[in-house]
Amino acid sequence: MQDGPGAPRAGTVQFGYPDWVDELDWSASYPSDRERMALAIHVAFKNVERGTGGPFGSAIFQAETGRLVSVGMNLVVRNHNSTLHGEMVAFQMAQSALGTHTLGGEGQDVHELFTSCEPCAMCLGATLWSGVRRLVCAASGEDARALGFDEGPVFEESYAYLRDRGVLVEREVMRAEGQAVLARYRDLGGLIYNG
Amino acid sequence: MQDGPGAPRAGTVQFGYPDWVDELDWSASYPSDRERMALAIHVAFKNVERGTGGPFGSAIFQAETGRLVSVGMNLVVRNHNSTLHGEMVAFQMAQSALGTHTLGGEGQDVHELFTSCEPCAMCLGATLWSGVRRLVCAASGEDARALGFDEGPVFEESYAYLRDRGVLVEREVMRAEGQAVLARYRDLGGLIYNG
Repeated sequence: MQDGPGAPRAGTVQFGYPDWVDELDWSASYPSDRERMALAIHVAFKNVERGTGGPFGSAIFQAETGRLVSVGMNLVVRNHNSTLHGEMVAFQMAQSALGTHTLGGEGQDVHELFTSCEPCAMCLGATLWSGVRRLVCAASGEDARALGFDEGPVFEESYAYLRDRGVLVEREVMRAEGQAVLARYRDLGGLIYNG
Repeated sequence: MQDGPGAPRAGTVQFGYPDWVDELDWSASYPSDRERMALAIHVAFKNVERGTGGPFGSAIFQAETGRLVSVGMNLVVRNHNSTLHGEMVAFQMAQSALGTHTLGGEGQDVHELFTSCEPCAMCLGATLWSGVRRLVCAASGEDARALGFDEGPVFEESYAYLRDRGVLVEREVMRAEGQAVLARYRDLGGLIYNG
Protein backbone atom coordinates (compact mmCIF):
# COMPACT_ATOMS: atom_id res chain seq x y z
CA MET A 1 0.00 0.00 0.00
CA GLN A 2 1.93 3.02 -1.28
CA ASP A 3 -0.76 5.61 -0.87
CA GLY A 4 -1.24 5.31 2.87
CA PRO A 5 -1.74 8.26 5.13
CA GLY A 6 1.94 8.64 6.04
CA ALA A 7 1.92 8.25 9.79
CA PRO A 8 4.55 9.98 11.87
CA ARG A 9 6.96 7.46 13.34
CA ALA A 10 6.94 8.42 16.99
CA GLY A 11 10.38 7.67 18.29
CA THR A 12 11.39 8.65 21.79
CA VAL A 13 9.90 9.21 25.21
CA GLN A 14 11.81 11.13 27.85
CA PHE A 15 10.99 12.69 31.16
CA GLY A 16 12.86 14.23 34.05
CA TYR A 17 12.17 15.54 37.50
CA PRO A 18 10.80 19.04 37.99
CA ASP A 19 13.59 21.36 39.18
CA TRP A 20 12.21 21.56 42.71
CA VAL A 21 13.35 18.02 43.55
CA ASP A 22 16.78 19.57 44.13
CA GLU A 23 15.27 21.20 47.22
CA LEU A 24 14.60 17.79 48.79
CA ASP A 25 17.15 16.45 51.24
CA TRP A 26 18.77 13.71 49.17
CA SER A 27 21.63 13.19 51.59
CA ALA A 28 19.49 12.56 54.67
CA SER A 29 18.51 9.12 55.81
CA TYR A 30 14.87 8.52 56.69
CA PRO A 31 14.87 5.96 59.49
CA SER A 32 11.18 5.76 60.45
CA ASP A 33 7.98 5.07 58.54
CA ARG A 34 6.69 8.50 59.54
CA GLU A 35 9.73 10.24 58.09
CA ARG A 36 9.46 8.23 54.90
CA MET A 37 5.76 8.94 54.49
CA ALA A 38 6.25 12.60 55.36
CA LEU A 39 8.63 12.88 52.43
CA ALA A 40 6.20 11.20 49.99
CA ILE A 41 3.46 13.61 51.12
CA HIS A 42 5.84 16.56 50.91
CA VAL A 43 6.55 15.61 47.28
CA ALA A 44 2.81 15.57 46.57
CA PHE A 45 2.44 19.01 48.18
CA LYS A 46 5.35 20.44 46.22
CA ASN A 47 3.84 19.11 43.00
CA VAL A 48 0.62 20.98 43.74
CA GLU A 49 2.23 24.19 45.00
CA ARG A 50 4.65 24.42 42.10
CA GLY A 51 1.94 23.57 39.58
CA THR A 52 3.82 20.65 38.07
CA GLY A 53 1.00 18.12 38.33
CA GLY A 54 -1.63 16.25 40.29
CA PRO A 55 -1.70 15.85 44.08
CA PHE A 56 0.16 12.56 44.30
CA GLY A 57 3.68 11.87 45.51
CA SER A 58 5.79 8.80 46.16
CA ALA A 59 9.23 7.93 47.42
CA ILE A 60 11.34 4.77 47.34
CA PHE A 61 13.74 3.93 50.13
CA GLN A 62 16.25 1.27 50.99
CA ALA A 63 14.35 -0.50 53.75
CA GLU A 64 17.29 -1.07 56.06
CA THR A 65 19.24 2.16 55.80
CA GLY A 66 16.41 4.58 55.04
CA ARG A 67 18.40 5.91 52.12
CA LEU A 68 16.24 7.84 49.65
CA VAL A 69 16.55 6.22 46.23
CA SER A 70 13.96 8.11 44.17
CA VAL A 71 10.82 10.17 44.34
CA GLY A 72 7.86 10.33 41.98
CA MET A 73 5.13 12.83 41.34
CA ASN A 74 2.23 12.97 38.92
CA LEU A 75 3.50 14.42 35.62
CA VAL A 76 0.64 13.33 33.32
CA VAL A 77 -0.41 16.67 31.89
CA ARG A 78 3.00 18.37 31.99
CA ASN A 79 4.67 15.54 30.08
CA HIS A 80 1.77 14.58 27.80
CA ASN A 81 1.93 11.07 29.19
CA SER A 82 -1.02 9.31 30.84
CA THR A 83 1.26 6.70 32.45
CA LEU A 84 3.28 9.13 34.56
CA HIS A 85 1.58 8.74 37.91
CA GLY A 86 3.75 9.36 40.97
CA GLU A 87 4.43 5.71 41.66
CA MET A 88 5.41 5.05 38.04
CA VAL A 89 7.88 7.91 38.05
CA ALA A 90 9.39 6.67 41.32
CA PHE A 91 9.81 3.09 40.05
CA GLN A 92 11.46 4.20 36.82
CA MET A 93 13.76 6.74 38.42
CA ALA A 94 14.92 4.17 40.98
CA GLN A 95 15.55 1.53 38.32
CA SER A 96 17.35 4.05 36.16
CA ALA A 97 19.59 5.08 39.06
CA LEU A 98 20.37 1.47 39.96
CA GLY A 99 20.64 0.23 36.36
CA THR A 100 18.30 -2.71 36.81
CA HIS A 101 14.74 -3.65 35.86
CA THR A 102 13.95 -4.86 39.35
CA LEU A 103 14.37 -3.36 42.81
CA GLY A 104 14.10 -6.81 44.35
CA GLY A 105 16.68 -8.96 42.62
CA GLU A 106 18.81 -11.52 44.40
CA GLY A 107 21.57 -9.90 46.42
CA GLN A 108 19.96 -6.47 46.12
CA ASP A 109 18.93 -4.27 49.01
CA VAL A 110 15.24 -4.46 49.95
CA HIS A 111 13.24 -1.46 48.72
CA GLU A 112 9.95 0.06 49.88
CA LEU A 113 7.45 2.39 48.25
CA PHE A 114 5.73 5.10 50.27
CA THR A 115 2.90 6.87 48.49
CA SER A 116 0.66 9.76 49.47
CA CYS A 117 -2.46 7.98 48.17
CA GLU A 118 -3.40 4.38 47.44
CA PRO A 119 -2.31 3.38 43.93
CA CYS A 120 -4.66 3.18 40.98
CA ALA A 121 -5.01 -0.10 39.08
CA MET A 122 -2.02 0.67 36.86
CA CYS A 123 0.28 1.60 39.72
CA LEU A 124 -0.86 -1.32 41.85
CA GLY A 125 0.07 -3.72 39.05
CA ALA A 126 3.34 -1.89 38.50
CA THR A 127 4.16 -2.23 42.20
CA LEU A 128 4.26 -5.99 41.73
CA TRP A 129 6.66 -5.77 38.76
CA SER A 130 8.88 -3.13 40.35
CA GLY A 131 10.44 -5.45 42.88
CA VAL A 132 9.60 -3.34 45.96
CA ARG A 133 8.80 -5.52 48.95
CA ARG A 134 6.57 -3.15 50.85
CA LEU A 135 3.85 -0.69 49.84
CA VAL A 136 2.79 1.95 52.38
CA CYS A 137 -0.12 4.28 51.56
CA ALA A 138 -1.50 7.44 53.20
CA ALA A 139 -4.82 8.67 51.71
CA SER A 140 -7.25 5.98 50.56
CA GLY A 141 -8.54 5.28 47.08
CA GLU A 142 -11.89 6.48 48.38
CA ASP A 143 -10.34 9.83 49.27
CA ALA A 144 -9.08 10.22 45.69
CA ARG A 145 -12.45 9.21 44.26
CA ALA A 146 -14.18 11.75 46.50
CA LEU A 147 -12.14 14.41 44.71
CA GLY A 148 -13.27 13.10 41.32
CA PHE A 149 -10.29 10.97 40.34
CA ASP A 150 -10.90 7.50 38.99
CA GLU A 151 -8.75 4.79 40.57
CA GLY A 152 -9.63 2.11 38.01
CA PRO A 153 -10.34 -1.55 38.73
CA VAL A 154 -8.78 -1.96 42.17
CA PHE A 155 -10.44 -4.48 44.48
CA GLU A 156 -9.65 -5.91 47.92
CA GLU A 157 -8.53 -9.01 45.99
CA SER A 158 -5.92 -6.85 44.26
CA TYR A 159 -4.21 -6.13 47.57
CA ALA A 160 -4.51 -9.77 48.57
CA TYR A 161 -2.80 -10.72 45.32
CA LEU A 162 0.20 -8.54 46.18
CA ARG A 163 0.38 -9.89 49.71
CA ASP A 164 0.26 -13.48 48.40
CA ARG A 165 3.35 -12.68 46.35
CA GLY A 166 5.31 -11.37 49.26
CA VAL A 167 4.62 -7.63 49.07
CA LEU A 168 3.75 -6.20 52.48
CA VAL A 169 0.90 -3.70 52.22
CA GLU A 170 0.06 -1.05 54.81
CA ARG A 171 -2.76 1.40 54.25
CA GLU A 172 -3.98 4.61 55.86
CA VAL A 173 -0.63 5.52 57.40
CA MET A 174 -0.82 9.32 57.98
CA ARG A 175 -4.06 9.31 56.02
CA ALA A 176 -5.12 12.77 57.26
CA GLU A 177 -1.89 14.30 55.96
CA GLY A 178 -2.42 12.59 52.60
CA GLN A 179 -5.99 13.86 52.47
CA ALA A 180 -4.76 17.40 53.14
CA VAL A 181 -2.86 17.40 49.83
CA LEU A 182 -5.98 16.33 47.97
CA ALA A 183 -7.96 19.09 49.65
CA ARG A 184 -5.32 21.68 48.77
CA TYR A 185 -5.45 20.63 45.12
CA ARG A 186 -9.23 20.91 45.13
CA ASP A 187 -9.09 24.36 46.73
CA LEU A 188 -6.68 25.55 44.05
CA GLY A 189 -9.09 24.33 41.34
CA GLY A 190 -6.72 21.64 40.06
CA LEU A 191 -7.56 19.69 36.92
CA ILE A 192 -9.15 16.24 37.27
CA TYR A 193 -7.51 14.76 34.17
CA ASN A 194 -9.11 11.33 34.29
CA GLY A 195 -12.44 11.87 36.06
CA MET B 1 21.25 15.28 58.88
CA GLN B 2 24.56 16.05 57.27
CA ASP B 3 26.11 12.63 57.49
CA GLY B 4 23.55 10.76 55.43
CA PRO B 5 24.41 8.06 52.94
CA GLY B 6 24.60 10.42 49.96
CA ALA B 7 22.01 8.96 47.61
CA PRO B 8 22.42 9.43 43.88
CA ARG B 9 19.76 11.78 42.52
CA ALA B 10 18.32 9.81 39.65
CA GLY B 11 17.27 12.31 37.07
CA THR B 12 16.05 11.18 33.69
CA VAL B 13 14.29 8.29 32.03
CA GLN B 14 14.43 7.85 28.29
CA PHE B 15 13.57 5.08 25.89
CA GLY B 16 13.28 4.65 22.16
CA TYR B 17 12.16 2.04 19.70
CA PRO B 18 14.50 -0.76 18.66
CA ASP B 19 15.93 -0.07 15.18
CA TRP B 20 13.82 -2.78 13.56
CA VAL B 21 10.63 -0.72 13.83
CA ASP B 22 11.87 1.09 10.71
CA GLU B 23 11.14 -2.15 8.83
CA LEU B 24 7.42 -1.89 9.64
CA ASP B 25 5.13 -0.35 7.05
CA TRP B 26 4.39 3.00 8.67
CA SER B 27 2.82 4.45 5.54
CA ALA B 28 0.23 1.68 5.03
CA SER B 29 -3.28 1.90 6.33
CA TYR B 30 -4.66 -1.10 8.18
CA PRO B 31 -8.38 -1.22 7.40
CA SER B 32 -9.49 -4.46 9.08
CA ASP B 33 -9.21 -5.88 12.59
CA ARG B 34 -7.24 -8.81 11.20
CA GLU B 35 -4.67 -6.52 9.60
CA ARG B 36 -4.37 -4.49 12.78
CA MET B 37 -3.95 -7.54 14.97
CA ALA B 38 -1.52 -9.11 12.51
CA LEU B 39 0.71 -6.06 12.92
CA ALA B 40 0.60 -6.22 16.73
CA ILE B 41 1.54 -9.90 16.60
CA HIS B 42 4.26 -9.19 14.03
CA VAL B 43 5.75 -6.66 16.44
CA ALA B 44 5.76 -9.31 19.19
CA PHE B 45 7.50 -11.78 16.84
CA LYS B 46 10.11 -9.24 15.80
CA ASN B 47 10.85 -8.48 19.45
CA VAL B 48 11.53 -12.15 20.08
CA GLU B 49 13.51 -12.81 16.88
CA ARG B 50 15.68 -9.72 17.28
CA GLY B 51 16.22 -10.42 20.95
CA THR B 52 15.01 -7.02 22.10
CA GLY B 53 12.55 -8.28 24.72
CA GLY B 54 9.64 -10.43 25.79
CA PRO B 55 7.01 -11.93 23.46
CA PHE B 56 4.48 -9.12 23.62
CA GLY B 57 3.56 -6.57 20.98
CA SER B 58 0.96 -3.86 20.59
CA ALA B 59 -0.14 -1.29 18.05
CA ILE B 60 -2.38 1.77 18.22
CA PHE B 61 -4.49 2.81 15.25
CA GLN B 62 -6.84 5.59 14.32
CA ALA B 63 -10.09 3.64 14.38
CA GLU B 64 -11.64 5.18 11.29
CA THR B 65 -8.71 5.47 8.91
CA GLY B 66 -6.64 2.51 10.07
CA ARG B 67 -3.63 4.80 10.27
CA LEU B 68 -0.83 3.33 12.40
CA VAL B 69 -0.03 5.75 15.21
CA SER B 70 2.44 3.77 17.32
CA VAL B 71 3.65 0.32 18.21
CA GLY B 72 4.89 -1.07 21.49
CA MET B 73 6.99 -4.04 22.51
CA ASN B 74 8.25 -5.33 25.80
CA LEU B 75 11.51 -3.53 26.64
CA VAL B 76 11.74 -4.33 30.37
CA VAL B 77 15.13 -5.98 30.51
CA ARG B 78 16.78 -4.05 27.67
CA ASN B 79 15.85 -0.69 29.19
CA HIS B 80 16.16 -1.60 32.88
CA ASN B 81 12.56 -0.55 33.37
CA SER B 82 9.88 -2.84 34.77
CA THR B 83 7.07 -0.64 33.45
CA LEU B 84 7.94 -0.97 29.76
CA HIS B 85 5.43 -3.60 28.70
CA GLY B 86 4.31 -3.47 25.08
CA GLU B 87 1.07 -1.66 25.79
CA MET B 88 2.82 0.96 27.93
CA VAL B 89 5.33 1.69 25.19
CA ALA B 90 2.54 2.01 22.62
CA PHE B 91 0.52 4.44 24.77
CA GLN B 92 3.50 6.66 25.48
CA MET B 93 4.79 6.68 21.92
CA ALA B 94 1.35 7.61 20.61
CA GLN B 95 0.91 10.40 23.16
CA SER B 96 4.41 11.67 22.45
CA ALA B 97 3.70 11.73 18.71
CA LEU B 98 0.38 13.52 19.19
CA GLY B 99 1.59 15.83 21.98
CA THR B 100 -1.26 15.05 24.36
CA HIS B 101 -1.82 13.05 27.55
CA THR B 102 -4.95 11.42 26.18
CA LEU B 103 -5.79 9.61 22.96
CA GLY B 104 -9.48 10.22 23.57
CA GLY B 105 -9.89 13.93 24.11
CA GLU B 106 -12.76 15.96 22.73
CA GLY B 107 -12.39 16.59 19.02
CA GLN B 108 -9.66 13.97 18.69
CA ASP B 109 -9.76 10.93 16.44
CA VAL B 110 -10.87 7.71 18.10
CA HIS B 111 -7.96 5.35 18.84
CA GLU B 112 -7.78 1.60 19.38
CA LEU B 113 -5.21 -0.68 20.97
CA PHE B 114 -4.45 -4.08 19.49
CA THR B 115 -2.27 -6.32 21.61
CA SER B 116 -0.81 -9.78 21.04
CA CYS B 117 -1.75 -10.91 24.55
CA GLU B 118 -4.25 -9.78 27.17
CA PRO B 119 -2.83 -6.98 29.31
CA CYS B 120 -1.44 -7.48 32.80
CA ALA B 121 -2.95 -5.52 35.70
CA MET B 122 -0.70 -2.52 35.08
CA CYS B 123 -1.45 -2.35 31.36
CA LEU B 124 -5.16 -2.89 31.87
CA GLY B 125 -5.28 0.07 34.23
CA ALA B 126 -3.16 2.11 31.84
CA THR B 127 -5.58 1.32 29.02
CA LEU B 128 -8.27 3.21 30.89
CA TRP B 129 -6.04 6.29 31.37
CA SER B 130 -4.69 6.23 27.81
CA GLY B 131 -7.90 7.37 26.17
CA VAL B 132 -8.16 4.48 23.69
CA ARG B 133 -11.76 3.49 23.11
CA ARG B 134 -11.27 -0.14 22.15
CA LEU B 135 -8.99 -2.91 23.40
CA VAL B 136 -8.53 -5.97 21.19
CA CYS B 137 -6.48 -8.94 22.47
CA ALA B 138 -5.10 -12.10 20.84
CA ALA B 139 -3.57 -14.61 23.30
CA SER B 140 -5.25 -14.88 26.69
CA GLY B 141 -3.85 -14.10 30.11
CA GLU B 142 -4.03 -17.83 30.74
CA ASP B 143 -1.75 -18.43 27.75
CA ALA B 144 0.83 -16.05 29.25
CA ARG B 145 0.54 -17.67 32.66
CA ALA B 146 1.03 -21.10 31.10
CA LEU B 147 4.44 -19.87 29.93
CA GLY B 148 5.31 -18.74 33.45
CA PHE B 149 4.52 -15.02 33.22
CA ASP B 150 2.52 -13.44 36.01
CA GLU B 151 -0.36 -11.24 34.85
CA GLY B 152 -1.03 -9.68 38.24
CA PRO B 153 -4.44 -8.96 39.77
CA VAL B 154 -6.69 -9.04 36.68
CA PHE B 155 -10.24 -10.27 37.21
CA GLU B 156 -13.36 -10.50 35.07
CA GLU B 157 -14.53 -7.45 37.02
CA SER B 158 -11.50 -5.58 35.69
CA TYR B 159 -12.75 -5.96 32.12
CA ALA B 160 -16.27 -5.07 33.20
CA TYR B 161 -14.88 -1.89 34.76
CA LEU B 162 -13.36 -0.84 31.45
CA ARG B 163 -16.55 -1.63 29.56
CA ASP B 164 -18.61 0.37 32.06
CA ARG B 165 -16.41 3.37 31.25
CA GLY B 166 -16.95 3.09 27.53
CA VAL B 167 -13.94 1.03 26.45
CA LEU B 168 -14.95 -1.74 24.06
CA VAL B 169 -13.10 -4.97 24.86
CA GLU B 170 -12.64 -7.92 22.50
CA ARG B 171 -10.63 -10.96 23.52
CA GLU B 172 -9.19 -14.01 21.77
CA VAL B 173 -9.05 -12.39 18.33
CA MET B 174 -6.41 -14.42 16.42
CA ARG B 175 -5.57 -16.14 19.68
CA ALA B 176 -3.69 -19.01 17.99
CA GLU B 177 -1.35 -16.56 16.26
CA GLY B 178 -0.76 -14.78 19.57
CA GLN B 179 -0.04 -18.10 21.26
CA ALA B 180 2.49 -18.94 18.55
CA VAL B 181 4.68 -16.00 19.62
CA LEU B 182 4.62 -17.20 23.21
CA ALA B 183 5.60 -20.70 22.07
CA ARG B 184 8.45 -19.32 19.97
CA TYR B 185 9.80 -17.40 22.94
CA ARG B 186 9.64 -20.52 25.10
CA ASP B 187 11.42 -22.59 22.44
CA LEU B 188 14.23 -20.04 22.29
CA GLY B 189 14.63 -20.25 26.07
CA GLY B 190 13.53 -16.67 26.67
CA LEU B 191 13.77 -15.15 30.11
CA ILE B 192 10.66 -15.08 32.33
CA TYR B 193 11.52 -11.80 34.05
CA ASN B 194 8.58 -11.64 36.45
CA GLY B 195 7.63 -15.29 37.00
